[in-house]
Amino acid sequence: MLIVGEEINTSRPAVTEAVGKRDKGFITEIARKQVEAGAHYLDVNASTFLHEEPECLRWLVETIQSEIRVPLCLASNNPKAVSEALMRHEGQPMVNGVSLDPDHFAALAPVVGTKSCRVVAQCSSGKTPPETFEQKVQIGSELIEKLTAKGIALDRIYLDPCIQPMGVNSGMAITALEAMRELSNRYLGIHTICGLSGVSFGLPKRRLINSTFLAIAMAYGLTAAVLNPLDQQLMATVLAAEMILGRDDGCERYISAYQKGKV
Amino acid sequence: MLIVGEEINTSRPAVTEAVGKRDKGFITEIARKQVEAGAHYLDVNASTFLHEEPECLRWLVETIQSEIRVPLCLASNNPKAVSEALMRHEGQPMVNGVSLDPDHFAALAPVVGTKSCRVVAQCSSGKTPPETFEQKVQIGSELIEKLTAKGIALDRIYLDPCIQPMGVNSGMAITALEAMRELSNRYLGIHTICGLSGVSFGLPKRRLINSTFLAIAMAYGLTAAVLNPLDQQLMATVLAAEMILGRDDGCERYISAYQKGKV
Repeated sequence: MLIVGEEINTSRPAVTEAVGKRDKGFITEIARKQVEAGAHYLDVNASTFLHEEPECLRWLVETIQSEIRVPLCLASNNPKAVSEALMRHEGQPMVNGVSLDPDHFAALAPVVGTKSCRVVAQCSSGKTPPETFEQKVQIGSELIEKLTAKGIALDRIYLDPCIQPMGVNSGMAITALEAMRELSNRYLGIHTICGLSGVSFGLPKRRLINSTFLAIAMAYGLTAAVLNPLDQQLMATVLAAEMILGRDDGCERYISAYQKGKV
Repeated sequence: MLIVGEEINTSRPAVTEAVGKRDKGFITEIARKQVEAGAHYLDVNASTFLHEEPECLRWLVETIQSEIRVPLCLASNNPKAVSEALMRHEGQPMVNGVSLDPDHFAALAPVVGTKSCRVVAQCSSGKTPPETFEQKVQIGSELIEKLTAKGIALDRIYLDPCIQPMGVNSGMAITALEAMRELSNRYLGIHTICGLSGVSFGLPKRRLINSTFLAIAMAYGLTAAVLNPLDQQLMATVLAAEMILGRDDGCERYISAYQKGKV
């Protein structure tokens, strides 16, 4: 399971302040903690800075990678910001992401095609994601085929089924998971990814919902997740689920994590 | 999700003592608590009493049902004990269970065929359950066909994939779940059931494993579980998982349980 740490996002006021002040110590500290907790990639998102986004994203990439060897997931809809950040990035980057919205696709597909980066393919063609299983599969298929036509190999694609809050429509989570499974079977080799926090938005006991959702999504074939790796309940759920799903020979990683106090 | 409360089992010393003394108050209190916590059936197991098992099981059935309207799951390998308990039982009983072991099948199949009870079909043909997917599917299929040949309709059958501890073989849980899903697809209408506590035996943080396993098993199609309904983490996981799996319109049951302090 590929873990993308979500904590470096300027939607969080403390991160906005740190980026605004170019506070290198604060940013590298959050980065280090997430990597120590088990993140394989770190999401970096400076989209609230609007016109300054390219400069902020570039600074984040340089600042984090000057201290810590970790690849980054560039979360941005701004092709200039993504393009400039990609030029500074060391290792294999991930870009989150590209959707089937014509303007969005036209702006970002050329950028992600230029470097051998991993690409999050957002299963959406406009402002709101599709609602039915058939629509999701149709849009996901079309997007995957357009990306591969641009030379992006299937194993660089991370399909995001774009799960909307269950509080808005209680059937949305399972519809999205079923579409994700169908697309994984149809396009062998693609990865799948989703953010966790959205699914429980507006409901009580969100941590219970998020960890239960994570286990179920993994059973449906989810291979990567954007989450807070400092949430020990979530990370312990990942370890337990990988063991239950038969991906932890002799339960060694689970037991080792327990011995280190991580479960 | 059908919940079978597991607490009335003479493998627990307090229950053995209560059954030995015919302590009606103690037994009905555990029964009442489990039903209040959401159990639909109560497992009753007096197998440690050996030769006195028939008398003890009969007493348990009469004692519980004289106070509480709840159907029982008779957990016994003793055909005399099952047969006598069935005669006293009101409502639709469940019997746990029948395996493909020739002696076991010959002794119990006639007993469970006589009354319209629900039958747990244990996916096993001897002392240790089969290990591979193919063996499990083969044994499960043969057992289901033998039960239906005895006039037991598919919707009375609860297939138990007999999950062995992951600490013994880390691949056993997923193999059993995959076999369970295959058999559910092959014999439309059957139910599936499993006990939870065995899967985590010998591993640390068993409650984490049990609740994660429960969510994953439900994603694989599990429709009933033998568990401790007084474990609020497990019961909250059932509610969250049913909501995520699209079986809770408008999230109403989840929110209602939260308002009652059950999540």
